[in-house]
Amino acid sequence: MKEYDVIIIGGSAAGLTAAITARRHNADKTILLIRGEEKVMIPCGIPYIYGTLGGADKNIMPDAPLDANKVDLIVGKASKIDTAGKIVEVNGEKVKYEKLIIATGSQPIMPPIPGFDKKNVFPILKDMKYLDEMRDKLSAVKDLVVIGGGFIGFEFADECKKMNNMNVTIVEIMPHCLNLAYDEEFCIVAENLLKEKGIKIQTSTKVTEIVGHDSVEGVKLDNGETVPAQAVILGIGAASDVELADKAGIKIGTSNAILVDRFQRTSAPDVFACGDCAEKKSFFGGAPTGLKLASIAAMEARIAAANLYGIKRENNGTIGVFSTSVADTAFATAGLTEYLAVKHGYTIAVATQESPNRHPGGMPGLHKMTTKLIFEKNTGVLIGGQIMGGKAAGELINTVSALITNKMTAEDIAIFQAGTHPALTASPIATGLINAAEMAISMMKKN
Amino acid sequence: MKEYDVIIIGGSAAGLTAAITARRHNADKTILLIRGEEKVMIPCGIPYIYGTLGGADKNIMPDAPLDANKVDLIVGKASKIDTAGKIVEVNGEKVKYEKLIIATGSQPIMPPIPGFDKKNVFPILKDMKYLDEMRDKLSAVKDLVVIGGGFIGFEFADECKKMNNMNVTIVEIMPHCLNLAYDEEFCIVAENLLKEKGIKIQTSTKVTEIVGHDSVEGVKLDNGETVPAQAVILGIGAASDVELADKAGIKIGTSNAILVDRFQRTSAPDVFACGDCAEKKSFFGGAPTGLKLASIAAMEARIAAANLYGIKRENNGTIGVFSTSVADTAFATAGLTEYLAVKHGYTIAVATQESPNRHPGGMPGLHKMTTKLIFEKNTGVLIGGQIMGGKAAGELINTVSALITNKMTAEDIAIFQAGTHPALTASPIATGLINAAEMAISMMKKN
Repeated sequence: MKEYDVIIIGGSAAGLTAAITARRHNADKTILLIRGEEKVMIPCGIPYIYGTLGGADKNIMPDAPLDANKVDLIVGKASKIDTAGKIVEVNGEKVKYEKLIIATGSQPIMPPIPGFDKKNVFPILKDMKYLDEMRDKLSAVKDLVVIGGGFIGFEFADECKKMNNMNVTIVEIMPHCLNLAYDEEFCIVAENLLKEKGIKIQTSTKVTEIVGHDSVEGVKLDNGETVPAQAVILGIGAASDVELADKAGIKIGTSNAILVDRFQRTSAPDVFACGDCAEKKSFFGGAPTGLKLASIAAMEARIAAANLYGIKRENNGTIGVFSTSVADTAFATAGLTEYLAVKHGYTIAVATQESPNRHPGGMPGLHKMTTKLIFEKNTGVLIGGQIMGGKAAGELINTVSALITNKMTAEDIAIFQAGTHPALTASPIATGLINAAEMAISMMKKN
Repeated sequence: MKEYDVIIIGGSAAGLTAAITARRHNADKTILLIRGEEKVMIPCGIPYIYGTLGGADKNIMPDAPLDANKVDLIVGKASKIDTAGKIVEVNGEKVKYEKLIIATGSQPIMPPIPGFDKKNVFPILKDMKYLDEMRDKLSAVKDLVVIGGGFIGFEFADECKKMNNMNVTIVEIMPHCLNLAYDEEFCIVAENLLKEKGIKIQTSTKVTEIVGHDSVEGVKLDNGETVPAQAVILGIGAASDVELADKAGIKIGTSNAILVDRFQRTSAPDVFACGDCAEKKSFFGGAPTGLKLASIAAMEARIAAANLYGIKRENNGTIGVFSTSVADTAFATAGLTEYLAVKHGYTIAVATQESPNRHPGGMPGLHKMTTKLIFEKNTGVLIGGQIMGGKAAGELINTVSALITNKMTAEDIAIFQAGTHPALTASPIATGLINAAEMAISMMKKN
């Protein structure tokens, strides 16, 4: 029987990062990565295959890190884990492990809607051939409905419109697109940017049926309307792929993801889990959270793989830092939105600051930046931030993540040492983060 | 005699931020700002007057915040402070204060070089009329020498070249331009970008004389060469303007700046100082540092003004976070360089990571990012970082500032929760900060 010191099941963000990290921390161990795909799709890049990139072959995660880190690869679906015998079965073969990392990811949620199994109804599978075939089929489509206006649906709508200027309608059950990531005023700006491109958005609306004979012909809404569509994209989220772990008797958590402790250890000895398949606990209070992001997966992989031969790292809980981009505007978020903070039971102080991202205004690349910070009112601790504006918002949100990680208060942030430059940032007098913190301090004093 | 609760002397980054902050924290106080300039130049924008902006009138700091915050303004040079009587004299008038903030800034250093007083030798004065006249004179110049290749000299060289494609030569006494802010490998990339534009750079070179009859005709170097020049720009730094404070008997520190405590209080009762005129202590060890930046000035102003009527904020020491941009490449730095860390006596672990700022590589705006992190080797605490690459480096360096502020270790940074997006950042697997931290951890373990 083949034997490896470390086996990793799954080759996407979590699996690949786990392999790299396992090697970093263990120069002499043998490492095997098992994955189902011949070529791995960059998960967050998938929507961009359709417009910006022009094909799934432009969105392949490179295998070079596997070679560079002397990680063996088996392409095939792991069919069984024997946690007592420490054996994984793949392609009919048994392979023994000393340490195992499960990074099986997630699968798209199929909605409980009559007709979702018709032709040209596309869940987003992370499969290169499937995505390319989907691209061929979409290129002939005149009318597309995207069900779900979260990140994936929002970005797919934008990119499909770019592809061949088809008629695109997003149907979203919540009052706004991107509503789990941003507060209403940010969602509205993002929605308007899509609308300006001619994309229709129907919010607070349910799909009741996907109609058509063999292939989809339209989408019936709960307002009685039927939107014509020759294709439907399902962007309503993903569920942890726990089948393999569950069959092996590994405990599943209350959020239907693999239960892990703060060291990313599962209930089985020497078995770790990370990424979309693993349960996440919120940085804010510790309850399970359904957030699934490649960046969270990579962070968990760095914990799991460093801990294989002795605990070194602990998961502090998921903050949730993510961004998107429409036209020239970036939208970024970290931690809790105002809405979610109140829902969690926090008493909050909230401040929003607008400032240009250059100074003076004549410098090239000028874009208005809107920074919203959410503080716990009693302690003044930062618990969330949202930024929209120039593309650097995608990096500026990482400063917010660092401030949240360190439980910094509005007073701390008011004297934060932010670097500034005319060609690159807001002026030192108008720095969004700092001024929003000062505004929040005034509000905290008032009542 | 006129009386104000709060008087601020100086109207640039420190003075204006102090005025805004004083108002934020004191709704009912009367506030007066005294400044010498009718219109205030945005200090960091000054080089950009010459190429990008096209005139000093495009680089004016707006007065709107003064009105919005009900801050009275006197334009005139404060000629005397009576700290016993609590009186400031300006335009021959006496004004009484309860609390005083000195924010008199800095003046360009005049080099001890024969001939520096010739016509068309330009120190960088923050005076609109002077800068516009200088622009007129420079527009007729064929050969320009910039003495000093720090930020100001470097940016002036780039912008003057843009203005009318004149021949520009930078003469720098140190081995590289920008050598106080970046390590050699970063300086070389920046220098090469200027050289590609046709700008000449002579490093490790001293100017021995500025020659010419009435007006400058050339610059004599210590290698015997004389560079022809019809104009010279002096970019060799600035000295704190302490004249007013010194005359008033307020104590001056060892770095020839106004001595302040960690609350920004001077030796005189109820007198604070902030910005270029105030002494700064390093975040790293607490020794005085000569760094002079508008962003530091604004930070100190937020401390001074918040502390006027009771201590609320304390200066943690100057980290030094700044950036510049040449062509499409941004250069950003925070904390100590490798060179300075060793000079301070640290034993260090250093790691440099290269990664693209988009993922996959076909996404628009692709730029290689180089991230260098410097850690104290024994504790693993981050003490410096440098980033060059896409323009978002100007914001990403603020994440580095936040990590330094919180004394985070390489292990902390290895599991930092960075948000990522194909259109905005590196991939979650290749995030520069995190991978540089992982590399440093490997180095720390080795010996």
